[in-house]
Amino acid sequence: MITVLKPGTSQAQRDQLIVWLREQGLDVHVSEGSDYTVLGLIGDTSHVDMDLIGSLDIVESVKRVTEPYKQCSRKFHPEDTVVDVGGVKIGGGNFAVIAGPCSVESEEQIIAVAKAVKASGATLLRGGAFKPRTSPYDFQGLKADGIELLLEAKKETGLPIVTEIMNANHLPLFEDVDLIQVGARNMQNFELLKELGKTDRPILLKRGLANTLKELLMSAEYIMAGGNDKIILCERGIRTFETYTRNTLDISAVPMLHELTHLPVIVDPSHATGLNRLVEPMAMAAAACGADGIMIEVHNDPPHALCDGAQSLTPEQFDRVAGKIAGIREIFQK
Amino acid sequence: MITVLKPGTSQAQRDQLIVWLREQGLDVHVSEGSDYTVLGLIGDTSHVDMDLIGSLDIVESVKRVTEPYKQCSRKFHPEDTVVDVGGVKIGGGNFAVIAGPCSVESEEQIIAVAKAVKASGATLLRGGAFKPRTSPYDFQGLKADGIELLLEAKKETGLPIVTEIMNANHLPLFEDVDLIQVGARNMQNFELLKELGKTDRPILLKRGLANTLKELLMSAEYIMAGGNDKIILCERGIRTFETYTRNTLDISAVPMLHELTHLPVIVDPSHATGLNRLVEPMAMAAAACGADGIMIEVHNDPPHALCDGAQSLTPEQFDRVAGKIAGIREIFQK
Amino acid sequence: MITVLKPGTSQAQRDQLIVWLREQGLDVHVSEGSDYTVLGLIGDTSHVDMDLIGSLDIVESVKRVTEPYKQCSRKFHPEDTVVDVGGVKIGGGNFAVIAGPCSVESEEQIIAVAKAVKASGATLLRGGAFKPRTSPYDFQGLKADGIELLLEAKKETGLPIVTEIMNANHLPLFEDVDLIQVGARNMQNFELLKELGKTDRPILLKRGLANTLKELLMSAEYIMAGGNDKIILCERGIRTFETYTRNTLDISAVPMLHELTHLPVIVDPSHATGLNRLVEPMAMAAAACGADGIMIEVHNDPPHALCDGAQSLTPEQFDRVAGKIAGIREIFQK
Amino acid sequence: MITVLKPGTSQAQRDQLIVWLREQGLDVHVSEGSDYTVLGLIGDTSHVDMDLIGSLDIVESVKRVTEPYKQCSRKFHPEDTVVDVGGVKIGGGNFAVIAGPCSVESEEQIIAVAKAVKASGATLLRGGAFKPRTSPYDFQGLKADGIELLLEAKKETGLPIVTEIMNANHLPLFEDVDLIQVGARNMQNFELLKELGKTDRPILLKRGLANTLKELLMSAEYIMAGGNDKIILCERGIRTFETYTRNTLDISAVPMLHELTHLPVIVDPSHATGLNRLVEPMAMAAAACGADGIMIEVHNDPPHALCDGAQSLTPEQFDRVAGKIAGIREIFQK
Repeated sequence: MITVLKPGTSQAQRDQLIVWLREQGLDVHVSEGSDYTVLGLIGDTSHVDMDLIGSLDIVESVKRVTEPYKQCSRKFHPEDTVVDVGGVKIGGGNFAVIAGPCSVESEEQIIAVAKAVKASGATLLRGGAFKPRTSPYDFQGLKADGIELLLEAKKETGLPIVTEIMNANHLPLFEDVDLIQVGARNMQNFELLKELGKTDRPILLKRGLANTLKELLMSAEYIMAGGNDKIILCERGIRTFETYTRNTLDISAVPMLHELTHLPVIVDPSHATGLNRLVEPMAMAAAACGADGIMIEVHNDPPHALCDGAQSLTPEQFDRVAGKIAGIREIFQK
Repeated sequence: MITVLKPGTSQAQRDQLIVWLREQGLDVHVSEGSDYTVLGLIGDTSHVDMDLIGSLDIVESVKRVTEPYKQCSRKFHPEDTVVDVGGVKIGGGNFAVIAGPCSVESEEQIIAVAKAVKASGATLLRGGAFKPRTSPYDFQGLKADGIELLLEAKKETGLPIVTEIMNANHLPLFEDVDLIQVGARNMQNFELLKELGKTDRPILLKRGLANTLKELLMSAEYIMAGGNDKIILCERGIRTFETYTRNTLDISAVPMLHELTHLPVIVDPSHATGLNRLVEPMAMAAAACGADGIMIEVHNDPPHALCDGAQSLTPEQFDRVAGKIAGIREIFQK
Repeated sequence: MITVLKPGTSQAQRDQLIVWLREQGLDVHVSEGSDYTVLGLIGDTSHVDMDLIGSLDIVESVKRVTEPYKQCSRKFHPEDTVVDVGGVKIGGGNFAVIAGPCSVESEEQIIAVAKAVKASGATLLRGGAFKPRTSPYDFQGLKADGIELLLEAKKETGLPIVTEIMNANHLPLFEDVDLIQVGARNMQNFELLKELGKTDRPILLKRGLANTLKELLMSAEYIMAGGNDKIILCERGIRTFETYTRNTLDISAVPMLHELTHLPVIVDPSHATGLNRLVEPMAMAAAACGADGIMIEVHNDPPHALCDGAQSLTPEQFDRVAGKIAGIREIFQK
Repeated sequence: MITVLKPGTSQAQRDQLIVWLREQGLDVHVSEGSDYTVLGLIGDTSHVDMDLIGSLDIVESVKRVTEPYKQCSRKFHPEDTVVDVGGVKIGGGNFAVIAGPCSVESEEQIIAVAKAVKASGATLLRGGAFKPRTSPYDFQGLKADGIELLLEAKKETGLPIVTEIMNANHLPLFEDVDLIQVGARNMQNFELLKELGKTDRPILLKRGLANTLKELLMSAEYIMAGGNDKIILCERGIRTFETYTRNTLDISAVPMLHELTHLPVIVDPSHATGLNRLVEPMAMAAAACGADGIMIEVHNDPPHALCDGAQSLTPEQFDRVAGKIAGIREIFQK
């Protein structure tokens, strides 16, 4: 950590700060310029409150040299992490194709979709049982019954299942869920992250709508700090000023995260754009820039055939996308 | 809700959509233009999935005419709500001055700050016991012990206390807390909101870092839908591209929320700017535009007297701000 | 245009508004609901001030049904526009590979880079002569001399050239420039756009840092309204909260713009990320989602071989990227 | 400027960088930590390309210690600048009340508004002659005729006039304009800024919709670098995700700019919110936090009396706001 002192800082103020920093277990290396003095803080600075130092009257600025995350950093773990999700490997060259409906609605629906997406090459089945909704009046999901139906579909197809958790108290219901999703709005629900860190279950951690990659990695760090390193990160679009798309897919998050962390990174083009006709090009872009997987909404029974334009693909549309993705993937495997 | 159909929509498609909308309990009023057809959907549209309709192939656009929140809307409750917090009224002309340290550190500290801020005119004491931190390695607060110390300070000074909850399972610890704060990162932790809705405790709901006012009101609606209408909203700065300040205080949120909702609205200039030297002008601005209160960080013992520049004010600085605020408030009471 | 009147609007107010709207040449179609009244405004609404109507006391909301842009809209021109740039076609399946240095520095430099990128498959040469810089103290480019050097490189290699204009008064200097670039900061310099609209020169219009796609299209419309339809749009990254990358590449802008407009759309991964190691994956993503070209910074002489990490690629790095892009393009040509 | 080298940088690479930095006229002070090496760059770093250094392979990060702006910095000019605009002083305790219509429409209109706002205490008259519009089909202002009408109103009332310039070629038309406005979309039109820097005319520089305060100050620096120091800065709202207001007034820009620069800072609540009913509370907030003035849209003839809800105030509404502002100002003058 580098701390720059303002011009005009007295010797006494400087010494007082240095004493206080040393009390926090840091070595302090002083470097004097003509106008300013630079303090290099050496030691474990992950516990140091950078904001507090930065706010001191005599401090011009403060800057971390090392990232505040460690266990998820590639610096300390150069090889790709491969997460085993119910027998399906994700990361390190293993590409996941996760597909399924936004919400689990009925046994018939989920089993039909599961069979269809499996036939097209999906390797995991997704489906919402507990649904975070902006409005208390919107459908909140089938909850425990939804998980039961997902398990039925798993029994039928053999596809491992992914579904979202919203409350650590629900963990017992998720005992047979293969991959537990933390949604964008809960990315900084630190209490939930801590509880998931105590388990040994694979976690799919979605980036928050206005969160930086550093914040995403700090949330992964929460889970890893508890002892659970089975984490898959998911870019699912961020909030920008653009209104034609629901969110904006930050595609550069894929290679950037691959540089920063050893954890697998997948992309959700359905939520990122909110428009089913953009799912194919965005899934292609994700595969072309090295994502470890994609997660796509597929629905078998659009209401009265009117829903073709929705965020969800039909099984036929998904089949086409899955085929194209396989084409892009071949270039990588050469 | 207004739905505009694309040019070229066939009669059959249109009829199919109208039948489906009527099945959802809506009246549909058709208005034909030369190029497009407009459907006016009449009835209780708060249950209707606007995104689904908007994503239909034949739909050009869809727009809500009525807001999706009801119980917190001023349309349905024109008079200001006044929330009684341990005997202190907030809202409807009653201005709250909430002050105290970011974190409760010790009995000595919290009692000294409580006495100081009370002497300067504070009407409530704030202090963090459970602290949401971006890093798992940062200080997470004194937790239950912190609440105990706040209760000690309340006993000494008579000031009602405000502190943040992060987990509904902790509610039993908050039995004697006068005002329960939901932090910015938990604004859309719907599971927590639902649990708070089942209580009859006053709630201080902070706006999320990148959330709109509509989303803030929908979160308030979650609490009210459960039966608890003792809610105070708090503007605490939003994320923008500006870097000189930690966040950007959205001061227009105050009059805008007053127009939209009957709930009281307070401002937290400390978190909004992250700079103690901006707390005074921002508190002045908040008072001048009609806020129902301010919440200011005050710390009695900046580390080794170095902390004057921090986000927190010293008791002396707070005394000056409180005096100036009183001056502004007089203009309103004339 | 749809205008929704507030509940409680009197008949007199409504009639007054309708008279005023008709005076502006619009037909008004009234549709009454139980709570609100909807006015459908029919006719050429592109001249109507939507903000003014929206701000009327009696108006709940107003919404355009048709987009405010016309000449650049795909609705009125379904086929892809193909722009001929000095004999090189761009758009409609013709993929452009534009490469060259950020700034033209010397004859030796620009000719060396031009030869190298041509050998790797570039179809146009880019190079900055007039440089928009945030600081008045930064290098502002070689200006007219820079254009001369680009023309030398064109003579040597046959590559058409692209360079940025900042001032319509400089147009005479751009007489032999094949593609005139409007930079992100000038996207809404309407005076410049109007002057370019009066010429018949191909224009490369870059999206502003915080502008929406609609605003980009409105700026294209400024040029087209003057009579010049030789426009290529460029997505070059938008401002978001992410700090690891300089900007955030909005990759979904490519298919979204293809849906909205007939104009070609290219991607600049160098400016979008600011990191040369992200240029390859982002160029791959752009090609995979259907962009009509890419524009990449290539520099032949990184200062003292230290510059490998810069935004620019070396000719060797560019050669590798160009080869990979060709691989992706093959999938499209199948 | 502080440059942190990555762990593992070789002595040879380090020396090569240092030699290159010294060639650029900088002293380099080396400070070695256990993991990283810090280079302090001393001398005039305003010419140094920070992005280039930051992109070097061996560089972990680079950080400016001194701001890149100088002439507008308060560090080098501690006293408030007072700008004389046609005899009216702005800044240094002199509060400006600027009022007038968005667009000049007719002699009758502008003279009536000018007389009304003068009677209510306005000290300058604003009115748009050249109007930047997002759409080429929208009204672009009366142009030269609009300036003539403003000069008529000035003759009648004695109020100095403010109007926007969009093209440096129009400068001859602005000879008698007292304060030349640079609009938000032209804040980084560097060619225009340079031309204005060559004049000795007072400039009102508006902050761009998504620009930081540093960028605003760099644009002021462009004008000052040319020799013109008569600059007034204007906060007029920034783009955020909030949709109830057109933009978001960044009220903390006022005290923050006062800390960073000696130039006067005024606030435009009309454009910041887009809603006339928010103009009063936002003008109050601006005055309460120390702004040097406000700029408010006032229109005398809302179309058929329907326009009460528009962004513009009526003269009666303005009179009320001006009176309230005077009340707030009294607190400051005590």
